[in-house]
Amino acid sequence: MANSIYRASILQSYSQLLFQPCLSNKHCVPKKTNLLCFASSQLNPARSEVSFCIGTHLIPHPNKVERGGEDAFFVSNFKGGVIAVADGVSGWAEQNVDPSLFSKELMANASSLVGNLEVNYDPQILIRKAHAATCSKGSATAIVAMLERNGTMKVASVGDCGLRVIRKGQIIFSTTPQEHYFDCPYQLSSELVGQTYLDAVVSSVELVEGDTIVMGSDGLFDNVFDGEIVSKLAAHSDVVEAGIG
Amino acid sequence: MANSIYRASILQSYSQLLFQPCLSNKHCVPKKTNLLCFASSQLNPARSEVSFCIGTHLIPHPNKVERGGEDAFFVSNFKGGVIAVADGVSGWAEQNVDPSLFSKELMANASSLVGNLEVNYDPQILIRKAHAATCSKGSATAIVAMLERNGTMKVASVGDCGLRVIRKGQIIFSTTPQEHYFDCPYQLSSELVGQTYLDAVVSSVELVEGDTIVMGSDGLFDNVFDGEIVSKLAAHSDVVEAGIG
Repeated sequence: MANSIYRASILQSYSQLLFQPCLSNKHCVPKKTNLLCFASSQLNPARSEVSFCIGTHLIPHPNKVERGGEDAFFVSNFKGGVIAVADGVSGWAEQNVDPSLFSKELMANASSLVGNLEVNYDPQILIRKAHAATCSKGSATAIVAMLERNGTMKVASVGDCGLRVIRKGQIIFSTTPQEHYFDCPYQLSSELVGQTYLDAVVSSVELVEGDTIVMGSDGLFDNVFDGEIVSKLAAHSDVVEAGIG
Repeated sequence: MANSIYRASILQSYSQLLFQPCLSNKHCVPKKTNLLCFASSQLNPARSEVSFCIGTHLIPHPNKVERGGEDAFFVSNFKGGVIAVADGVSGWAEQNVDPSLFSKELMANASSLVGNLEVNYDPQILIRKAHAATCSKGSATAIVAMLERNGTMKVASVGDCGLRVIRKGQIIFSTTPQEHYFDCPYQLSSELVGQTYLDAVVSSVELVEGDTIVMGSDGLFDNVFDGEIVSKLAAHSDVVEAGIG
Protein backbone atom coordinates (compact mmCIF):
# COMPACT_ATOMS: atom_id res chain seq x y z
CA MET A 1 0.00 0.00 0.00
CA ALA A 2 1.67 3.20 -1.16
CA ASN A 3 -0.01 6.29 0.22
CA SER A 4 1.16 9.35 -1.62
CA ILE A 5 0.57 10.32 -5.21
CA TYR A 6 3.70 11.80 -6.71
CA ARG A 7 3.02 15.34 -7.91
CA ALA A 8 6.43 16.98 -8.20
CA SER A 9 8.77 16.83 -11.14
CA ILE A 10 11.55 14.27 -11.27
CA LEU A 11 14.23 14.84 -8.66
CA GLN A 12 17.39 16.62 -9.70
CA SER A 13 19.94 14.23 -11.07
CA TYR A 14 22.78 13.22 -8.82
CA SER A 15 26.17 14.54 -9.82
CA GLN A 16 28.09 12.44 -12.29
CA LEU A 17 31.41 13.00 -10.63
CA LEU A 18 33.29 10.73 -8.34
CA PHE A 19 32.90 11.08 -4.60
CA GLN A 20 34.86 9.99 -1.60
CA PRO A 21 33.08 9.82 1.76
CA CYS A 22 35.11 10.98 4.75
CA LEU A 23 35.64 7.48 6.06
CA SER A 24 39.23 8.32 6.86
CA ASN A 25 38.04 11.29 8.92
CA LYS A 26 38.94 11.17 12.59
CA HIS A 27 35.24 11.20 13.39
CA CYS A 28 34.79 7.96 11.50
CA VAL A 29 37.35 5.67 13.05
CA PRO A 30 36.71 2.22 11.68
CA LYS A 31 36.48 -0.69 14.08
CA LYS A 32 37.60 -3.08 11.39
CA THR A 33 39.53 -2.84 8.21
CA ASN A 34 37.83 -0.71 5.61
CA LEU A 35 38.57 -1.16 1.97
CA LEU A 36 36.43 0.60 -0.47
CA CYS A 37 36.35 1.41 -4.12
CA PHE A 38 34.31 4.24 -5.54
CA ALA A 39 33.29 4.28 -9.12
CA SER A 40 30.93 6.44 -11.09
CA SER A 41 29.76 5.77 -14.60
CA GLN A 42 30.46 8.46 -17.17
CA LEU A 43 29.14 8.81 -20.67
CA ASN A 44 31.68 8.89 -23.46
CA PRO A 45 30.11 11.59 -25.64
CA ALA A 46 31.85 10.43 -28.79
CA ARG A 47 30.67 6.84 -28.56
CA SER A 48 27.66 7.00 -26.21
CA GLU A 49 29.29 4.38 -24.07
CA VAL A 50 29.82 4.31 -20.33
CA SER A 51 32.94 3.62 -18.34
CA PHE A 52 33.98 3.82 -14.72
CA CYS A 53 35.77 6.74 -13.14
CA ILE A 54 37.46 4.98 -10.24
CA GLY A 55 38.97 6.00 -6.92
CA THR A 56 40.14 3.75 -4.10
CA HIS A 57 40.82 4.05 -0.42
CA LEU A 58 42.28 1.53 1.99
CA ILE A 59 42.12 1.91 5.78
CA PRO A 60 43.81 -1.02 7.53
CA HIS A 61 42.61 -2.12 10.94
CA PRO A 62 44.63 -0.15 13.53
CA ASN A 63 46.24 -3.39 14.73
CA LYS A 64 47.29 -4.35 11.20
CA VAL A 65 48.65 -1.11 9.84
CA GLU A 66 52.24 -2.36 9.77
CA ARG A 67 51.40 -5.13 7.30
CA GLY A 68 48.99 -2.91 5.36
CA GLY A 69 45.92 -4.81 6.47
CA GLU A 70 44.46 -8.01 5.11
CA ASP A 71 42.33 -6.58 2.34
CA ALA A 72 43.39 -6.29 -1.27
CA PHE A 73 41.86 -4.87 -4.41
CA PHE A 74 42.46 -4.15 -8.04
CA VAL A 75 40.97 -1.81 -10.56
CA SER A 76 41.25 -1.95 -14.32
CA ASN A 77 40.11 0.20 -17.23
CA PHE A 78 39.60 -2.88 -19.40
CA LYS A 79 36.38 -2.39 -21.39
CA GLY A 80 34.00 -0.32 -19.20
CA GLY A 81 36.15 -0.96 -16.15
CA VAL A 82 36.69 -3.62 -13.51
CA ILE A 83 36.75 -3.23 -9.72
CA ALA A 84 37.42 -6.00 -7.24
CA VAL A 85 37.98 -6.42 -3.51
CA ALA A 86 39.18 -9.41 -1.47
CA ASP A 87 39.27 -9.68 2.32
CA GLY A 88 41.71 -12.11 3.92
CA VAL A 89 40.22 -14.24 6.68
CA SER A 90 41.98 -13.16 9.86
CA GLY A 91 41.57 -16.49 11.63
CA TRP A 92 44.61 -17.78 9.72
CA ALA A 93 46.86 -15.69 11.93
CA GLU A 94 46.18 -18.20 14.72
CA GLN A 95 47.96 -20.77 12.54
CA ASN A 96 50.87 -18.42 11.91
CA VAL A 97 49.67 -17.76 8.38
CA ASP A 98 49.65 -14.14 7.24
CA PRO A 99 45.98 -13.62 6.28
CA SER A 100 46.88 -10.95 3.74
CA LEU A 101 48.88 -13.24 1.48
CA PHE A 102 45.91 -15.12 0.05
CA SER A 103 43.81 -12.03 -0.63
CA LYS A 104 46.71 -10.17 -2.20
CA GLU A 105 47.67 -13.06 -4.46
CA LEU A 106 44.04 -13.63 -5.41
CA MET A 107 43.67 -10.03 -6.52
CA ALA A 108 47.03 -10.04 -8.31
CA ASN A 109 45.96 -13.14 -10.21
CA ALA A 110 42.58 -11.63 -11.04
CA SER A 111 44.26 -8.49 -12.28
CA SER A 112 46.51 -10.42 -14.63
CA LEU A 113 43.58 -12.50 -15.93
CA VAL A 114 41.08 -9.74 -16.53
CA GLY A 115 41.62 -9.69 -20.30
CA ASN A 116 42.01 -13.47 -20.62
CA LEU A 117 39.97 -14.89 -23.48
CA GLU A 118 38.69 -17.81 -21.42
CA VAL A 119 37.49 -15.40 -18.75
CA ASN A 120 35.37 -13.78 -21.47
CA TYR A 121 34.71 -10.75 -19.28
CA ASP A 122 32.68 -12.88 -16.88
CA PRO A 123 33.31 -12.07 -13.18
CA GLN A 124 32.44 -15.58 -12.03
CA ILE A 125 34.97 -17.12 -14.42
CA LEU A 126 37.53 -14.54 -13.34
CA ILE A 127 37.05 -15.69 -9.74
CA ARG A 128 37.37 -19.32 -10.82
CA LYS A 129 40.64 -18.81 -12.67
CA ALA A 130 42.14 -16.41 -10.13
CA HIS A 131 41.30 -18.82 -7.31
CA ALA A 132 42.78 -21.77 -9.21
CA ALA A 133 46.00 -19.81 -9.77
CA THR A 134 46.43 -18.83 -6.12
CA CYS A 135 49.09 -20.82 -4.27
CA SER A 136 49.19 -19.07 -0.88
CA LYS A 137 47.76 -20.73 2.20
CA GLY A 138 44.71 -18.95 3.53
CA SER A 139 41.26 -17.87 2.46
CA ALA A 140 39.41 -14.73 1.47
CA THR A 141 36.05 -13.33 0.57
CA ALA A 142 35.95 -11.65 -2.83
CA ILE A 143 33.76 -9.52 -5.06
CA VAL A 144 34.31 -8.56 -8.70
CA ALA A 145 32.30 -6.07 -10.79
CA MET A 146 32.79 -5.67 -14.53
CA LEU A 147 31.17 -2.88 -16.52
CA GLU A 148 30.13 -3.44 -20.10
CA ARG A 149 30.29 -0.39 -22.33
CA ASN A 150 26.52 -0.56 -22.77
CA GLY A 151 26.01 0.05 -19.03
CA THR A 152 25.50 -3.51 -17.78
CA MET A 153 27.55 -4.10 -14.63
CA LYS A 154 28.06 -7.80 -13.89
CA VAL A 155 28.87 -8.75 -10.32
CA ALA A 156 30.10 -12.00 -8.75
CA SER A 157 30.61 -12.29 -5.00
CA VAL A 158 31.69 -15.01 -2.59
CA GLY A 159 31.21 -14.02 1.05
CA ASP A 160 30.61 -10.68 2.70
CA CYS A 161 32.36 -8.08 0.61
CA GLY A 162 29.69 -5.79 -0.78
CA LEU A 163 28.62 -3.30 -3.39
CA ARG A 164 26.05 -0.50 -3.50
CA VAL A 165 24.80 1.48 -6.48
CA ILE A 166 23.61 4.99 -5.65
CA ARG A 167 21.36 6.85 -8.11
CA LYS A 168 19.84 10.27 -7.45
CA GLY A 169 20.77 10.04 -3.79
CA GLN A 170 19.25 6.60 -3.22
CA ILE A 171 20.69 3.13 -3.08
CA ILE A 172 19.06 1.27 -5.95
CA PHE A 173 21.10 -1.95 -5.88
CA SER A 174 22.84 -3.86 -3.10
CA THR A 175 24.60 -7.15 -2.83
CA THR A 176 23.81 -9.43 0.10
CA PRO A 177 26.48 -11.14 2.21
CA GLN A 178 26.74 -14.93 2.44
CA GLU A 179 27.89 -16.56 5.65
CA HIS A 180 27.88 -19.99 7.27
CA TYR A 181 27.32 -18.49 10.69
CA PHE A 182 28.16 -15.26 12.46
CA ASP A 183 31.55 -13.91 11.41
CA CYS A 184 32.25 -16.95 9.21
CA PRO A 185 31.56 -15.83 5.65
CA TYR A 186 31.63 -17.94 2.52
CA GLN A 187 35.26 -17.87 1.47
CA LEU A 188 37.58 -18.91 -1.31
CA SER A 189 40.24 -21.03 0.34
CA SER A 190 43.48 -22.89 -0.15
CA GLU A 191 41.70 -25.80 1.56
CA LEU A 192 39.18 -28.15 -0.04
CA VAL A 193 36.44 -27.33 2.48
CA GLY A 194 36.15 -23.75 1.28
CA GLN A 195 33.80 -22.36 -1.34
CA THR A 196 34.41 -21.99 -5.04
CA TYR A 197 33.22 -19.83 -7.92
CA LEU A 198 30.17 -22.10 -8.05
CA ASP A 199 29.05 -20.63 -4.71
CA ALA A 200 29.23 -17.07 -6.01
CA VAL A 201 26.11 -14.99 -6.19
CA VAL A 202 26.07 -13.71 -9.76
CA SER A 203 23.95 -10.69 -10.58
CA SER A 204 23.92 -7.68 -12.84
CA VAL A 205 22.42 -4.22 -12.90
CA GLU A 206 21.86 -1.72 -15.69
CA LEU A 207 23.77 1.47 -14.85
CA VAL A 208 23.09 4.95 -16.18
CA GLU A 209 25.41 7.92 -16.45
CA GLY A 210 26.04 9.44 -13.04
CA ASP A 211 25.45 6.36 -10.94
CA THR A 212 27.93 5.97 -8.09
CA ILE A 213 29.16 2.54 -7.05
CA VAL A 214 30.64 1.87 -3.64
CA MET A 215 32.40 -1.47 -3.20
CA GLY A 216 34.14 -2.60 -0.05
CA SER A 217 34.92 -5.32 2.42
CA ASP A 218 32.63 -6.04 5.35
CA GLY A 219 34.80 -3.67 7.35
CA LEU A 220 33.07 -0.85 5.52
CA PHE A 221 29.50 -2.10 5.53
CA ASP A 222 29.65 -3.40 9.12
CA ASN A 223 30.68 0.01 10.39
CA VAL A 224 28.90 2.47 8.13
CA PHE A 225 25.15 2.34 7.58
CA ASP A 226 23.92 2.61 4.01
CA GLY A 227 22.26 5.91 4.86
CA GLU A 228 25.58 7.28 6.08
CA ILE A 229 27.28 6.22 2.85
CA VAL A 230 24.65 8.06 0.84
CA SER A 231 24.85 11.21 2.94
CA LYS A 232 28.66 11.21 2.86
CA LEU A 233 28.58 10.96 -0.91
CA ALA A 234 26.16 13.87 -1.10
CA ALA A 235 28.59 16.04 0.87
CA HIS A 236 31.16 15.99 -1.94
CA SER A 237 30.62 17.68 -5.24
CA ASP A 238 33.50 16.44 -7.37
CA VAL A 239 36.47 14.15 -7.54
CA VAL A 240 39.00 16.90 -6.84
CA GLU A 241 37.23 17.91 -3.66
CA ALA A 242 37.05 14.29 -2.61
CA GLY A 243 40.81 14.04 -3.08
CA ILE A 244 40.80 10.93 -5.23
CA GLY A 245 43.53 10.74 -7.78
CA MET B 1 37.87 -8.42 8.22
CA ALA B 2 36.38 -11.88 8.31
CA ASN B 3 37.31 -13.76 11.44
CA SER B 4 36.47 -17.40 11.08
CA ILE B 5 37.98 -19.94 8.76
CA TYR B 6 35.32 -22.20 7.35
CA ARG B 7 36.06 -25.81 8.26
CA ALA B 8 32.77 -27.63 7.83
CA SER B 9 31.45 -29.16 4.67
CA ILE B 10 29.04 -27.25 2.47
CA LEU B 11 25.66 -26.72 4.08
CA GLN B 12 22.84 -29.00 3.10
CA SER B 13 20.99 -27.76 0.07
CA TYR B 14 17.72 -25.99 0.62
CA SER B 15 14.67 -27.91 -0.50
CA GLN B 16 13.63 -27.38 -4.08
CA LEU B 17 9.96 -27.31 -3.30
CA LEU B 18 7.68 -24.39 -3.08
CA PHE B 19 6.94 -22.86 0.29
CA GLN B 20 4.30 -20.60 1.69
CA PRO B 21 5.03 -18.70 4.89
CA CYS B 22 2.16 -18.37 7.33
CA LEU B 23 1.55 -14.74 6.52
CA SER B 24 -2.17 -15.38 6.51
CA ASN B 25 -1.87 -16.87 9.99
CA LYS B 26 -3.78 -15.09 12.73
CA HIS B 27 -0.50 -14.48 14.50
CA CYS B 28 0.76 -12.50 11.54
CA VAL B 29 -1.96 -9.93 10.96
CA PRO B 30 -0.65 -7.52 8.35
CA LYS B 31 -0.91 -3.82 9.00
CA LYS B 32 -1.01 -3.12 5.30
CA THR B 33 -1.95 -5.00 2.21
CA ASN B 34 0.22 -8.01 1.59
CA LEU B 35 0.59 -9.43 -1.85
CA LEU B 36 3.21 -11.99 -2.40
CA CYS B 37 4.25 -14.46 -5.00
CA PHE B 38 6.40 -17.44 -4.20
CA ALA B 39 8.38 -19.13 -6.86
CA SER B 40 11.06 -21.79 -6.77
CA SER B 41 13.24 -22.81 -9.64
CA GLN B 42 13.15 -26.45 -10.66
CA LEU B 43 15.44 -28.33 -12.95
CA ASN B 44 13.88 -30.00 -15.94
CA PRO B 45 15.90 -33.23 -15.94
CA ALA B 46 15.23 -33.96 -19.59
CA ARG B 47 16.46 -30.61 -20.86
CA SER B 48 18.59 -29.28 -18.00
CA GLU B 49 16.54 -26.13 -17.99
CA VAL B 50 14.92 -24.31 -15.09
CA SER B 51 11.41 -23.00 -14.68
CA PHE B 52 9.34 -21.48 -11.91
CA CYS B 53 6.97 -23.41 -9.71
CA ILE B 54 4.66 -20.60 -8.64
CA GLY B 55 2.18 -20.00 -5.84
CA THR B 56 0.43 -16.75 -4.94
CA HIS B 57 -1.32 -15.29 -1.94
CA LEU B 58 -3.22 -12.02 -1.59
CA ILE B 59 -4.18 -10.51 1.76
CA PRO B 60 -6.07 -7.24 1.31
CA HIS B 61 -5.83 -4.54 3.92
CA PRO B 62 -8.63 -5.16 6.44
CA ASN B 63 -10.29 -1.89 5.40
CA LYS B 64 -10.20 -2.83 1.72
CA VAL B 65 -11.35 -6.42 1.79
CA GLU B 66 -14.68 -5.66 0.07
CA ARG B 67 -12.95 -4.38 -3.07
CA GLY B 68 -10.27 -7.06 -2.90
CA GLY B 69 -7.51 -4.63 -2.02
CA GLU B 70 -5.46 -2.37 -4.27
CA ASP B 71 -2.75 -4.81 -5.27
CA ALA B 72 -2.75 -6.89 -8.41
CA PHE B 73 -0.49 -9.55 -9.85
CA PHE B 74 -0.06 -11.97 -12.69
CA VAL B 75 1.91 -15.14 -13.20
CA SER B 76 2.73 -16.87 -16.46
CA ASN B 77 4.50 -20.04 -17.49
CA PHE B 78 5.85 -18.38 -20.62
CA LYS B 79 9.46 -19.52 -21.10
CA GLY B 80 10.93 -20.08 -17.61
CA GLY B 81 8.05 -18.21 -16.00
CA VAL B 82 6.98 -14.66 -15.28
CA ILE B 83 5.79 -13.16 -11.98
CA ALA B 84 4.65 -9.57 -11.48
CA VAL B 85 3.08 -7.45 -8.75
CA ALA B 86 1.56 -3.96 -8.88
CA ASP B 87 0.41 -1.88 -5.90
CA GLY B 88 -2.20 0.82 -6.47
CA VAL B 89 -1.40 4.14 -4.78
CA SER B 90 -4.08 4.60 -2.13
CA GLY B 91 -3.96 8.40 -2.19
CA TRP B 92 -6.19 8.35 -5.26
CA ALA B 93 -9.14 7.43 -3.06
CA GLU B 94 -9.10 11.03 -1.79
CA GLN B 95 -9.98 12.06 -5.33
CA ASN B 96 -12.77 9.47 -5.54
CA VAL B 97 -10.63 7.29 -7.81
CA ASP B 98 -10.58 3.58 -6.98
CA PRO B 99 -6.83 2.95 -6.46
CA SER B 100 -7.18 -0.66 -7.53
CA LEU B 101 -8.27 0.07 -11.10
CA PHE B 102 -4.87 1.23 -12.33
CA SER B 103 -2.90 -1.62 -10.78
CA LYS B 104 -5.36 -4.24 -12.01
CA GLU B 105 -5.42 -2.89 -15.56
CA LEU B 106 -1.63 -2.57 -15.56
CA MET B 107 -1.23 -6.23 -14.63
CA ALA B 108 -3.92 -7.34 -17.09
CA ASN B 109 -2.11 -5.48 -19.86
CA ALA B 110 1.23 -6.94 -18.82
CA SER B 111 -0.25 -10.41 -18.81
CA SER B 112 -1.56 -10.03 -22.34
CA LEU B 113 1.75 -8.62 -23.58
CA VAL B 114 4.12 -11.13 -22.01
CA GLY B 115 4.69 -13.03 -25.26
CA ASN B 116 4.70 -9.94 -27.46
CA LEU B 117 7.58 -9.95 -29.92
CA GLU B 118 8.43 -6.30 -29.27
CA VAL B 119 8.62 -7.01 -25.55
CA ASN B 120 11.30 -9.55 -26.41
CA TYR B 121 11.07 -11.10 -22.93
CA ASP B 122 12.48 -7.90 -21.40
CA PRO B 123 10.76 -6.88 -18.14
CA GLN B 124 11.52 -3.19 -18.64
CA ILE B 125 9.91 -3.20 -22.09
CA LEU B 126 6.95 -5.12 -20.68
CA ILE B 127 6.47 -2.34 -18.13
CA ARG B 128 6.73 0.27 -20.88
CA LYS B 129 4.12 -1.33 -23.10
CA ALA B 130 1.76 -2.30 -20.28
CA HIS B 131 1.93 1.23 -18.89
CA ALA B 132 1.30 2.77 -22.30
CA ALA B 133 -1.76 0.54 -22.74
CA THR B 134 -3.30 1.42 -19.38
CA CYS B 135 -6.24 3.85 -19.58
CA SER B 136 -7.43 3.96 -15.95
CA LYS B 137 -6.83 7.02 -13.82
CA GLY B 138 -4.44 6.35 -10.96
CA SER B 139 -0.91 5.16 -10.33
CA ALA B 140 0.90 2.09 -9.08
CA THR B 141 4.26 0.70 -8.20
CA ALA B 142 5.22 -2.41 -10.14
CA ILE B 143 7.78 -5.18 -10.33
CA VAL B 144 8.24 -7.82 -13.02
CA ALA B 145 10.57 -10.85 -12.96
CA MET B 146 11.16 -13.05 -16.00
CA LEU B 147 13.07 -16.32 -15.81
CA GLU B 148 15.13 -17.49 -18.75
CA ARG B 149 15.39 -21.23 -19.15
CA ASN B 150 19.14 -20.99 -18.51
CA GLY B 151 18.48 -19.68 -14.97
CA THR B 152 18.89 -15.94 -15.52
CA MET B 153 16.07 -14.07 -13.80
CA LYS B 154 15.65 -10.53 -15.14
CA VAL B 155 13.92 -8.01 -12.88
CA ALA B 156 12.54 -4.52 -13.52
CA SER B 157 10.99 -2.50 -10.71
CA VAL B 158 9.48 0.97 -10.36
CA GLY B 159 8.79 1.91 -6.74
CA ASP B 160 8.63 -0.13 -3.59
CA CYS B 161 7.37 -3.56 -4.55
CA GLY B 162 10.15 -6.02 -3.82
CA LEU B 163 11.75 -9.38 -4.44
CA ARG B 164 14.01 -11.66 -2.44
CA VAL B 165 15.91 -14.74 -3.56
CA ILE B 166 16.54 -17.32 -0.83
CA ARG B 167 19.25 -19.95 -1.31
CA LYS B 168 20.25 -22.48 1.34
CA GLY B 169 18.32 -20.58 3.98
CA GLN B 170 19.87 -17.20 3.21
CA ILE B 171 18.72 -14.21 1.22
CA ILE B 172 21.24 -13.86 -1.57
CA PHE B 173 19.53 -11.18 -3.68
CA SER B 174 17.21 -8.30 -2.81
CA THR B 175 15.70 -5.43 -4.69
CA THR B 176 15.78 -1.97 -3.15
CA PRO B 177 12.76 0.36 -3.02
CA GLN B 178 12.75 3.73 -4.74
CA GLU B 179 10.85 6.61 -3.22
CA HIS B 180 10.65 10.40 -3.55
CA TYR B 181 10.09 10.80 0.16
CA PHE B 182 8.53 8.76 2.97
CA ASP B 183 5.49 6.83 1.77
CA CYS B 184 5.68 8.35 -1.73
CA PRO B 185 7.28 5.70 -3.93
CA TYR B 186 8.28 6.00 -7.55
CA GLN B 187 5.11 5.14 -9.43
CA LEU B 188 3.77 4.52 -12.90
CA SER B 189 0.91 6.96 -13.33
CA SER B 190 -1.90 8.09 -15.57
CA GLU B 191 -0.47 11.59 -15.08
CA LEU B 192 2.57 13.05 -16.81
CA VAL B 193 4.41 13.78 -13.54
CA GLY B 194 4.76 10.10 -12.71
CA GLN B 195 7.65 7.81 -13.50
CA THR B 196 8.11 5.64 -16.56
CA TYR B 197 9.91 2.45 -17.53
CA LEU B 198 13.02 4.60 -17.87
CA ASP B 199 13.02 5.03 -14.09
CA ALA B 200 12.95 1.29 -13.47
CA VAL B 201 15.83 -0.37 -11.70
CA VAL B 202 16.81 -3.21 -14.02
CA SER B 203 18.83 -6.08 -12.63
CA SER B 204 19.28 -9.79 -13.00
CA VAL B 205 20.47 -12.73 -10.95
CA GLU B 206 21.62 -16.20 -11.87
CA LEU B 207 19.32 -18.73 -10.18
CA VAL B 208 20.10 -22.33 -9.39
CA GLU B 209 17.75 -25.22 -8.85
CA GLY B 210 16.00 -24.97 -5.49
CA ASP B 211 16.21 -21.20 -5.06
CA THR B 212 13.05 -19.68 -3.63
CA ILE B 213 11.83 -16.29 -4.79
CA VAL B 214 9.49 -14.16 -2.73
CA MET B 215 7.93 -11.18 -4.49
CA GLY B 216 5.46 -8.80 -2.94
CA SER B 217 4.20 -5.28 -2.45
CA ASP B 218 5.61 -3.05 0.28
CA GLY B 219 2.77 -4.31 2.45
CA LEU B 220 4.75 -7.53 2.81
CA PHE B 221 8.24 -6.16 3.24
CA ASP B 222 7.17 -3.28 5.54
CA ASN B 223 5.55 -5.72 7.94
CA VAL B 224 7.73 -8.81 7.79
CA PHE B 225 11.47 -8.67 8.35
CA ASP B 226 13.65 -10.54 5.90
CA GLY B 227 14.73 -12.89 8.68
CA GLU B 228 11.12 -13.74 9.39
CA ILE B 229 10.50 -14.52 5.73
CA VAL B 230 13.45 -16.89 5.72
CA SER B 231 12.41 -18.62 8.93
CA LYS B 232 8.80 -18.96 7.76
CA LEU B 233 10.00 -20.57 4.56
CA ALA B 234 12.13 -23.00 6.51
CA ALA B 235 9.08 -24.13 8.47
CA HIS B 236 7.43 -25.64 5.40
CA SER B 237 8.78 -28.70 3.68
CA ASP B 238 6.78 -28.88 0.46
CA VAL B 239 4.19 -27.21 -1.69
CA VAL B 240 1.38 -29.49 -0.52
CA GLU B 241 2.02 -28.66 3.11
CA ALA B 242 2.14 -25.00 2.26
CA GLY B 243 -1.26 -25.32 0.66
CA ILE B 244 -0.40 -23.64 -2.59
CA GLY B 245 -2.22 -24.97 -5.61
